[in-house]
Amino acid sequence: MYSAAVQDLIDKLGALPGIGPKSAQRLAFHLLAARAEEVEGLISALREVKLRVRFCDRCGNIAEADLCDICADPRRLATAICVVEEPKDVVAIERTREFRGTYHVLGGAIDPIGGVGPDDLRIRQLFTRLASGEVSEVILATDPNGEGEATAAYLARRLAPLDVTVTRLASGLPVGGDLEYADEVTLGRAFEGRRSMN
Amino acid sequence: MYSAAVQDLIDKLGALPGIGPKSAQRLAFHLLAARAEEVEGLISALREVKLRVRFCDRCGNIAEADLCDICADPRRLATAICVVEEPKDVVAIERTREFRGTYHVLGGAIDPIGGVGPDDLRIRQLFTRLASGEVSEVILATDPNGEGEATAAYLARRLAPLDVTVTRLASGLPVGGDLEYADEVTLGRAFEGRRSMN
Repeated sequence: MYSAAVQDLIDKLGALPGIGPKSAQRLAFHLLAARAEEVEGLISALREVKLRVRFCDRCGNIAEADLCDICADPRRLATAICVVEEPKDVVAIERTREFRGTYHVLGGAIDPIGGVGPDDLRIRQLFTRLASGEVSEVILATDPNGEGEATAAYLARRLAPLDVTVTRLASGLPVGGDLEYADEVTLGRAFEGRRSMN
Repeated sequence: MYSAAVQDLIDKLGALPGIGPKSAQRLAFHLLAARAEEVEGLISALREVKLRVRFCDRCGNIAEADLCDICADPRRLATAICVVEEPKDVVAIERTREFRGTYHVLGGAIDPIGGVGPDDLRIRQLFTRLASGEVSEVILATDPNGEGEATAAYLARRLAPLDVTVTRLASGLPVGGDLEYADEVTLGRAFEGRRSMN
């Protein structure tokens, strides 16, 4: 129905995560009608990112040099490693300003159905980092969902023989949320993890 | 928080219609981690579309030549023009195989709040086409929402002095839908437009 060039763009946009066929069509028509400079701006942003951005040799976070900004920062404590699934999780935790250690980005979570096993993640590199003996705490900050929990459980088991404290981020009610709107799993976790007030 | 290159890509993606800040971030991280060929494929699809695709001189639909495929097709009837807002509406109507005439793409709808007036649409070009006297029916197929109805009403008024039949697509219940889930405006329209069964 569309010309080949338009259909090709719709297909390529539709292959991106979270872009359905309707969105891909809307985006393609927007780009078709957009000023040439807008499209060139997007193209050069894509090029620039692929040219400049790589992954940190140590932690797997996104970086513009061998090491990411966090691993390269001498003020960050080498005694604590926070293990996350993706670079965007690093950004989310950095925003809290709660953590002064370094990160380890796994590049995903264990997902047997999706065909992602421990060997597909940067787990070997985590143990290489732990071999230095500098690290006293590993914080497992994988997502609070099935895959993330499975990954945390797997790592906790593998970390047990080592002389490090292993912790997991607390699950519970979102701050500012309404108790009645919390799903039962979250509410159950909040109960399980209740803390003394006195 | 992000490096300049990553933030720039997130900003450019987030400026596209229907892409919020979260989606823009997810897309940027996907593209960061994607194979270089995938990103180059997307870039060349964007380039190709801007290079090859233009708008039909006659009807404003997307085209790869002076005229779009429909205007260039001698089997299409020159006696009926279906007026739509956007090229994607042409695709939707073509899919029904109900219409053998040609189209006229306005490039939007009258929207006083959004600052779109009749002069911002391809209305002058529509009247130029009608001046040939060949056209006997103009079908107003703008969207069944506020802006689309206003545009149809405006065009109907302007077309009234001309010797052409002016029609509007029927509003009513979606085929295959449940009556109880129809919103009251649609249901009201369905009543208003009820047809005799005998």
